[in-house]
Amino acid sequence: MKKMILDLDTGVDDALAISYALGSPEVELIGITGTYGNVLMEQGVRNALAITELLGHPEVKVYRGLDHSSTTDSFQVLEISSFIHGQNGIGEVVIADSTRDAEDTPAVDFIIDAAKTYGKDLVYVPTGPLTNLDAAIARAPEIVDEIGRVVLMGGALTVPGNVNAWTEANISQDPDAANRVFCSGIPATMVGLDVTLQTLLTYKETQRWRDLGTPAGAFLADMTDFYIKAYETTAPHLGGCGLHDPLAVGVAVDPTLVTTLPINMKVDVEGPTRGRTIGDETRLNDPVKTMDAAVGVDVPRFLDEFMTRISTLAANAA
Amino acid sequence: MKKMILDLDTGVDDALAISYALGSPEVELIGITGTYGNVLMEQGVRNALAITELLGHPEVKVYRGLDHSSTTDSFQVLEISSFIHGQNGIGEVVIADSTRDAEDTPAVDFIIDAAKTYGKDLVYVPTGPLTNLDAAIARAPEIVDEIGRVVLMGGALTVPGNVNAWTEANISQDPDAANRVFCSGIPATMVGLDVTLQTLLTYKETQRWRDLGTPAGAFLADMTDFYIKAYETTAPHLGGCGLHDPLAVGVAVDPTLVTTLPINMKVDVEGPTRGRTIGDETRLNDPVKTMDAAVGVDVPRFLDEFMTRISTLAANAA
Repeated sequence: MKKMILDLDTGVDDALAISYALGSPEVELIGITGTYGNVLMEQGVRNALAITELLGHPEVKVYRGLDHSSTTDSFQVLEISSFIHGQNGIGEVVIADSTRDAEDTPAVDFIIDAAKTYGKDLVYVPTGPLTNLDAAIARAPEIVDEIGRVVLMGGALTVPGNVNAWTEANISQDPDAANRVFCSGIPATMVGLDVTLQTLLTYKETQRWRDLGTPAGAFLADMTDFYIKAYETTAPHLGGCGLHDPLAVGVAVDPTLVTTLPINMKVDVEGPTRGRTIGDETRLNDPVKTMDAAVGVDVPRFLDEFMTRISTLAANAA
Repeated sequence: MKKMILDLDTGVDDALAISYALGSPEVELIGITGTYGNVLMEQGVRNALAITELLGHPEVKVYRGLDHSSTTDSFQVLEISSFIHGQNGIGEVVIADSTRDAEDTPAVDFIIDAAKTYGKDLVYVPTGPLTNLDAAIARAPEIVDEIGRVVLMGGALTVPGNVNAWTEANISQDPDAANRVFCSGIPATMVGLDVTLQTLLTYKETQRWRDLGTPAGAFLADMTDFYIKAYETTAPHLGGCGLHDPLAVGVAVDPTLVTTLPINMKVDVEGPTRGRTIGDETRLNDPVKTMDAAVGVDVPRFLDEFMTRISTLAANAA
């Protein structure tokens, strides 16, 4: 069975990504590595522990990752992140702390070990900045050839960014790390705003979770409603919230959900467009393409998989 | 038979576009409309008249278009354009003036008339700024639904620009006009740097034209060698010159030469990324896509068509 690591800054859609992964019998979630972004790394780790517990999967191990970018000494949550995800990252919904703590092994060590243990059977799904993966590659460059695939939520190739006209939030947190990962040759699928802003969730779907009558269903519904509400302010033209992180998990489980463009990519680290994800013109005519950028998505099929998997999990969790 | 209008700032690759069109029995070149960019509009019109004459097609009518962008009062050729195309636009190669002059009818009138006369049989191929087409649409908005298709050389969706990191030269000349055309709903295929920097020509191919022993072959070879030489300075990583404008003609003749992404596009007209071609986030989830962006190209097949068509024309021209 395919082994999956989620690298999360557990916010709202990260929580939905955990739910999708746990609702997918095709993969075994062997660990969650913590990063910063939507929330501080420590808060994200706390959330991941609490959510896996609530969803009935206390066996999932959680690892602390790096808590700031490769070019800074510290990290502070942006006001817009708190507006979208809530101060606690999960839409101000209160759930019990897990009795478990994070593992002692640092995330970077765990990632390297997992790449060596599982090799091509391992899919690594980062839905925040790429700081942990970059550090793992710096420490053990050979994992670039060993790992099965990276399926990342981040970037924007054929649409504008969401931080500014050219930068997507996850990439913007550590453009230098993202550029090193993109140019490393690691096989990666970029699930960016190109497709995640096409897969929208509304109050109609969250009500189905609430109607399950379980604590997990109520948590998912209340948390996601907070997120949909924020989208009414930040992106009123969409008519719902983007399912960013769960789509990356969906693609990791079933790559046929998206159509992709084989491409060698880079991240602009200099100049006015710092943080932009774009084709690397110096490798345009290299016949080997190390990345796939998702440019189309089967929206009805993904939404159906999303609702079925998460509803089944939430119905049975408690 | 498909009717074609070329809208050119006749420069080197525009001259190759004329050659490709005249070498294509599938289309009838019903006129060339002049624009500014690589050269002044008047110089481009002069070149188009002289080149069609040299290539044995004095029946092709040439029309003067607008000679500056929609937001300026005048136009001056950039130093980089003269470096790439030569002061005279055709690599400093001297060829005789045509005895014909341009038509009295302005280009914009001719474009509107042709759209009404030929409708869906008309393909309009602009390889410079979109100023003429924008003006035609402003005057006669109904041509958006009447015209067969626009196949434009310009823009860059999945690769950086060639003026700066985000802007391609043709679009940069009149981003406002390009944005209005992109948002007008006119059916258009964007043949941008994404694909034109994959289709490269070298001295080996131009030597085949020189070896034909005809004036047309010598002209094409000498002119294009100037262009390849400039590329050795401006883009040494490519190892040849990009076949920008002829690829647009190739795609207009045979759309199967490229793979395309259906997309609703816009051009940034405000902010630091002015002149960038990108998906329009406000029409991301509109099921109707009015444009196709070329993101892949069958390089060997295009190069073969390019050499066969142009060599046959140049062999028989004189």
